[in-house]
Amino acid sequence: MSDSFLSQLPAELNVLTDPASLVRYGSDASGLCAGVPLLVARPATVEQVGALVALCARHNRKITIAGGGSGLAGGAAPDEGDVVISLELLNRIEDIDEAGGTALVQAGVVLETLCAAVEEKGWYFPLDLGARGSCQIGGNVATNAGGNRVLRYGTTRQLVLGLEVVLPDGTIMTMLDRTLKNNTGLDLKQLFIGTEGTLGIITRVVVRLFPRPQTRRSALVGLGSFTQIAPLLKAARSALPELSSFEVMWADYVAQAARVTGRAIPFDGAWPLTVLLETEGADTPMFHAGFDAFLESMLENDAVQDAIVPQNLEHAADLWAIRDGIGELFTSLRPFVAFDIGIPLKDMGAFIEQAMAEISQRWPQASNLLFGHLGDGNLHLTTGHLQPDDIVPVEEAVYALTGRFNGSISAEHGIGRLKKPFLHYSRDDTQQQVMRRIRDALNPQGVLNAARILD
Amino acid sequence: MSDSFLSQLPAELNVLTDPASLVRYGSDASGLCAGVPLLVARPATVEQVGALVALCARHNRKITIAGGGSGLAGGAAPDEGDVVISLELLNRIEDIDEAGGTALVQAGVVLETLCAAVEEKGWYFPLDLGARGSCQIGGNVATNAGGNRVLRYGTTRQLVLGLEVVLPDGTIMTMLDRTLKNNTGLDLKQLFIGTEGTLGIITRVVVRLFPRPQTRRSALVGLGSFTQIAPLLKAARSALPELSSFEVMWADYVAQAARVTGRAIPFDGAWPLTVLLETEGADTPMFHAGFDAFLESMLENDAVQDAIVPQNLEHAADLWAIRDGIGELFTSLRPFVAFDIGIPLKDMGAFIEQAMAEISQRWPQASNLLFGHLGDGNLHLTTGHLQPDDIVPVEEAVYALTGRFNGSISAEHGIGRLKKPFLHYSRDDTQQQVMRRIRDALNPQGVLNAARILD
Repeated sequence: MSDSFLSQLPAELNVLTDPASLVRYGSDASGLCAGVPLLVARPATVEQVGALVALCARHNRKITIAGGGSGLAGGAAPDEGDVVISLELLNRIEDIDEAGGTALVQAGVVLETLCAAVEEKGWYFPLDLGARGSCQIGGNVATNAGGNRVLRYGTTRQLVLGLEVVLPDGTIMTMLDRTLKNNTGLDLKQLFIGTEGTLGIITRVVVRLFPRPQTRRSALVGLGSFTQIAPLLKAARSALPELSSFEVMWADYVAQAARVTGRAIPFDGAWPLTVLLETEGADTPMFHAGFDAFLESMLENDAVQDAIVPQNLEHAADLWAIRDGIGELFTSLRPFVAFDIGIPLKDMGAFIEQAMAEISQRWPQASNLLFGHLGDGNLHLTTGHLQPDDIVPVEEAVYALTGRFNGSISAEHGIGRLKKPFLHYSRDDTQQQVMRRIRDALNPQGVLNAARILD
Repeated sequence: MSDSFLSQLPAELNVLTDPASLVRYGSDASGLCAGVPLLVARPATVEQVGALVALCARHNRKITIAGGGSGLAGGAAPDEGDVVISLELLNRIEDIDEAGGTALVQAGVVLETLCAAVEEKGWYFPLDLGARGSCQIGGNVATNAGGNRVLRYGTTRQLVLGLEVVLPDGTIMTMLDRTLKNNTGLDLKQLFIGTEGTLGIITRVVVRLFPRPQTRRSALVGLGSFTQIAPLLKAARSALPELSSFEVMWADYVAQAARVTGRAIPFDGAWPLTVLLETEGADTPMFHAGFDAFLESMLENDAVQDAIVPQNLEHAADLWAIRDGIGELFTSLRPFVAFDIGIPLKDMGAFIEQAMAEISQRWPQASNLLFGHLGDGNLHLTTGHLQPDDIVPVEEAVYALTGRFNGSISAEHGIGRLKKPFLHYSRDDTQQQVMRRIRDALNPQGVLNAARILD
């Protein structure tokens, strides 16, 4: 069967079969290697994707879809013998609509490239995450990427106006809407956003743009207690309509991230909690006066204990370096588990307290580092210095607690292969059954990204 | 069968069978009457809804779901002999989370009631439309209601964090998320938002709240040409992050709406286009200075020709009265067709030109009134003074043109029964097939809201 399949592969598919490529496309940033693929095909047109998928479906040949390879849930790791379809050559920005503020791009465009191209035209695509230099917009959509500015602009789901997808039988479904509103029945694009390639291959995307902000203001503030977080967030959302980030860091995290990135510890570590606020907007006296007035009133009312206000963009970058320091911290924490939990803000304090109590009791040698996009109810807890055998029990404990708080075991990273065993803590039997019914209605053979999210 | 069905109906369902009620629940604001229902059941708990749906499914008894009855697409009009399930007694606001800014409400809560309740707690639910005093939040979600503030806050889809639904077999599916982020596979709530009750009955909703704005500023500006619209919108979005409305009205519309609402015609009708801008935010000097500076710079640069800036809320209400005057205008336009078209802003000028040319050539006696939420690419064209026999050909002509512009035949009102014949102009065969596959996977017997959207 494999021979007949191979003989029918069109020549123009830019196929790779050398061992180095097979290994390179054989995992993602999670490091999981589930098997070695048969080959990597790199179609250069949507029609080539459609024809290849149809061929695979006829031969019952399983497909793994490859984007930028920055996923953390093992979703891009192929099974042994899979055909990997990489979208990397579908990398054209087809059109930037400067009147309406939309862009039509192919799935393989790298996020950073898209952002730079629209900024050149006076527009702004606000999606921003650590992998910006390698992740592709198709993968961002397939995983509903979140990142640093969800509070203001939403997740990728809210930034997508239209999609084109190749269905598991090779049919091309084109729905490249360019308006905010289309109430003509089921919003089909929602089926493909966040479903990690299990229902279709995203080939083109229409994204919503925003006028390019002229400037940014940020501040790091110190808080004496977690109970100050919710009122501060509400006050900031109210006074600063441009508030785009509200990143909360706990003292241990700040100290270690400062150390590893070679920065001084802000406030000399005086406060148990530090919040990095950022707004972006027009470079007007009103914008700056509004930001300064907000900080002053927070300090006056003891809503915050102290504030560091960077005077220039480099100084602001220093603050973000601490927030982004988690990447460099990982090495020193091995073996670790990096959680990406969604918990309602009102329950966040109790959740953290119970999680810390259970971990410190059962795994007294563990180090816990806490930070998160708390404006979105998204906590990144990293539990490190574990024994390899502790990993699964720690995951089990934290995800079970998440379930008891009606939280999400994956706020932004997705389920892929690695979180599948814990899905039941966020999705009950009824929900899983409906998810399965939809998958089986669209991808009955399991041709696309089989064994991700659900068995 | 009917007798056995009736004998099994639980007593607590608050059933209505009197002729007046059957007529009252037998249509919606579109006026369409498709048939007289068997009875109207008004369950008071989610469990009662589940049990009733299961009973109907066993007896193959079709259900029409009733919300506030303000729909314009005939979606709430039952077929002869249907069981109408009204959600009106599921009308409790169960919880307002003042820390995180979310509310958990039952589906039958009237929109205006919800807005007032959260405002009392210092929060804000921004959904706003003409039917606010009668429409119910469950219906708003089922039809993905748009309205006046989509530009800033999105449609209802963007305001829903969690849902509970009763599936067509009576199963209750509860997914009452309270966070912005949950990437644990298919976002199931998207299946029920905007699908007009064809996949499930919405019983409870978690909505996202915003800090209550302290004040509003609005202005009416006059423009000499349509080409000024896109740059003005971009400038306004850029300078006014709180911009919540950008409502464009053409001269004929303004003149007639002013007449019918007893107001003076703004600018004495000097400008072919008038835009009503509104922002909402904190009542700070910066907020007001920012708004005034924006208007001044627009006037200085000839981006707008003239501006009326209301000095108080009553004066602002006068401007909104003109914008909302369409309701009163309808009577004088009969027979008319009220279109709700989505067209990319870049193509809007060409679309209007071609539509006006075709209508005036084929139906010279017709009056065309134009206004729209152009910030969302949403045009409301009302074509009146038609002959009754002209209605369908006028619809056919405008929807066919919409299709040629890749637009949406329903930007915010939905498809229901009345727009079903034209769905193919916005959804091709492949899309309709996928929509049908999903419907058949969830509602195979057609128990819920049969014959809406798709046959």
